[in-house]
Amino acid sequence: MSTQSSGPRAPIAILTDFGYRDHYSGVMKGVITSICPQAPIIDLTHGIPPQQVLAGALALRESVNFFPRRTIFLAVVDPGVGTNRKPIAVTTKTGARLVGPDNGLLWLAAERAEIGEIVELRSPRYRLPKVSASFHGRDIFAPAAAWLWRGIAMHELGPPLQSMTQIDFGVGVVEKPAQLEGQIIYVDNFGNLISNIGRLTFERFAHRFQQCRLSIKIERRAPLSLYNAYAQAAPGAPLAIFGSFDLLEIAVRDGNAAAYFGAPLGARVSISAARSRTTSR
Amino acid sequence: MSTQSSGPRAPIAILTDFGYRDHYSGVMKGVITSICPQAPIIDLTHGIPPQQVLAGALALRESVNFFPRRTIFLAVVDPGVGTNRKPIAVTTKTGARLVGPDNGLLWLAAERAEIGEIVELRSPRYRLPKVSASFHGRDIFAPAAAWLWRGIAMHELGPPLQSMTQIDFGVGVVEKPAQLEGQIIYVDNFGNLISNIGRLTFERFAHRFQQCRLSIKIERRAPLSLYNAYAQAAPGAPLAIFGSFDLLEIAVRDGNAAAYFGAPLGARVSISAARSRTTSR
Amino acid sequence: MSTQSSGPRAPIAILTDFGYRDHYSGVMKGVITSICPQAPIIDLTHGIPPQQVLAGALALRESVNFFPRRTIFLAVVDPGVGTNRKPIAVTTKTGARLVGPDNGLLWLAAERAEIGEIVELRSPRYRLPKVSASFHGRDIFAPAAAWLWRGIAMHELGPPLQSMTQIDFGVGVVEKPAQLEGQIIYVDNFGNLISNIGRLTFERFAHRFQQCRLSIKIERRAPLSLYNAYAQAAPGAPLAIFGSFDLLEIAVRDGNAAAYFGAPLGARVSISAARSRTTSR
Repeated sequence: MSTQSSGPRAPIAILTDFGYRDHYSGVMKGVITSICPQAPIIDLTHGIPPQQVLAGALALRESVNFFPRRTIFLAVVDPGVGTNRKPIAVTTKTGARLVGPDNGLLWLAAERAEIGEIVELRSPRYRLPKVSASFHGRDIFAPAAAWLWRGIAMHELGPPLQSMTQIDFGVGVVEKPAQLEGQIIYVDNFGNLISNIGRLTFERFAHRFQQCRLSIKIERRAPLSLYNAYAQAAPGAPLAIFGSFDLLEIAVRDGNAAAYFGAPLGARVSISAARSRTTSR
Repeated sequence: MSTQSSGPRAPIAILTDFGYRDHYSGVMKGVITSICPQAPIIDLTHGIPPQQVLAGALALRESVNFFPRRTIFLAVVDPGVGTNRKPIAVTTKTGARLVGPDNGLLWLAAERAEIGEIVELRSPRYRLPKVSASFHGRDIFAPAAAWLWRGIAMHELGPPLQSMTQIDFGVGVVEKPAQLEGQIIYVDNFGNLISNIGRLTFERFAHRFQQCRLSIKIERRAPLSLYNAYAQAAPGAPLAIFGSFDLLEIAVRDGNAAAYFGAPLGARVSISAARSRTTSR
Repeated sequence: MSTQSSGPRAPIAILTDFGYRDHYSGVMKGVITSICPQAPIIDLTHGIPPQQVLAGALALRESVNFFPRRTIFLAVVDPGVGTNRKPIAVTTKTGARLVGPDNGLLWLAAERAEIGEIVELRSPRYRLPKVSASFHGRDIFAPAAAWLWRGIAMHELGPPLQSMTQIDFGVGVVEKPAQLEGQIIYVDNFGNLISNIGRLTFERFAHRFQQCRLSIKIERRAPLSLYNAYAQAAPGAPLAIFGSFDLLEIAVRDGNAAAYFGAPLGARVSISAARSRTTSR
């Protein structure tokens, strides 16, 4: 085995949908610390809503650039555990390593950081001796992350893959003549509704219709003002904002937009441009 | 005081029912890090349902074998805090140390790993100077775990005990002539219903009735198929499986069995054997 | 930059209202570990109820004395993010450092430990290159805490401030002729109702009326007995107790007082003194 190549302290950051009730995420940390006791372990989150692969993928994408370059991300949102979906590890050009099921969970982060190598985690040597059908986080993924931290080469984990499963934000953003249409793809702990409309897409649209009044709506509700900070809105008032995701977000000042709008994942968000009119008469 | 005998990095793993709202579990980590700043601390879980000693005991049992041998497990689910239930520390033959209240919480894990010494945590030297009546996790258990990590001997913590409080899975598994009867003893974050029927008990039963069709039921609901992986069932369909606990578990593919069956802790699970009949007529 | 002056292992302890669903608290840990990979990071809690500054301030106050002296507390409950509320760092006489928004969150802990220096976090050098309007925990507070851990001087973070925003427990405790009146200021994970009536205030009152029978009530409910331990009450019975906060607390033995009394934050707690009478007739 090669010497430790992760730098002295690159952490292993863990993201799962295991929640906080059970010992499941704790046991993964036990497995890691049994293999590489020196590795700093960071709980990124274990609160991804059960089996919501897209929510996990998005949270991972938003995290990857804020960690040290050679961080190992261990991600498990795995509704297909026990089927033939592949367990994989991915390197990025920036030096990060991503470990998890090949169901799209790793895609958004890998794509943002540029994909290097991909391997299938097939070597029994780097799994627990007994692999269950229901808990690959413990039996396959945690050991792979830990061995990577110890410095083994990617090819020791298993054969190379040419591609990995992709995932997207749903129907995508639709550009109609004078309208941009997206949807809510993530609801955070504060009830903020995050859409799939990126800042760049929005700015291009706004630039094209700079003579116009833009109207931002969620479903058929009243238009929302776009602010730079939550606190620019009046207390209790709804607003639109580009939040920390750099995606258009619907929020309520000092409140909970998910409760306010009752808008679930998938709710439609639209931005339409209308010529500014002088008031008639 | 003797020199550090825990190995350089055996962690202290913490399990409580303190939840994630308050600072309680955080304060325990503050106490530990004040006494042994070098000790790696792992949050096993703080989400054990309030005062459910059996759930905590089971989670601990399922964790202990996946951590480094000399891990110190600090466990606090303590409805009897402030009464005369004893605070204890237990060593196991495998080198682990368990610290917590003597109410059965430590029993299942200690039994699985084989019990070595037991002591009562009575020495004021290894407690906080002021011991409250309501928070022994902070005042007694965390300091004991931290001092053990620093290498003090068990007998320095207090006098030896000959035995500790045991706990069991409730009524136990009943074997009737052609039926095995157990109950739900744990509901996890995904809504999976874990019974007290172990794989071995099941396999012995299945072997004895190998000429028969086995029918697995929860309460009086329709029989369930036994699968090796959640994903072998159709989406939304209920199933039986031996999950990561190696106990018979009732689940719903991509769903939540607790919501599906409305079955609380204690619900009856039965396996009955019936001669395979050719369809009549 | 000066050499590491935090001692080898003083931790960074993080308290937020970010919850456990998203990656927000995880990303803060990523930022910290990018700047000071050696720093031990402790999750104090991320479960402060959204935007409840007083709850966060209280949890922080209850924690600060149980951590190593030179701990850096990074606290973010920040409804005013993006407004002109100041980001600050505070030192205490005991050597702790507190980093967070200047909205009262840090006040109770700073006051308890005695305030040293206060600075406004204005230097762009110790922020992330791009500061968002909505996530100063990631962009300003985490970097400041991490750089402090690395040993920079307070004045490098920004200009000194003469004072910081204070916060209090609401209306405070009112002393009427033979009555002490307070309110519920914190509800913990077990449903315990913590009031703003301190042990000292209570003891002074009790001493003054030592000839009297004291009657402790929440709202207009039946009087409660004062015990030294939860378990001294009968199972299911309500009680009063001085809990780990050293504040008068209303609890239910093996139960949940918040559910039992339906008493929200702000519910009135009163202690009245009545001359002990011999039963009439």
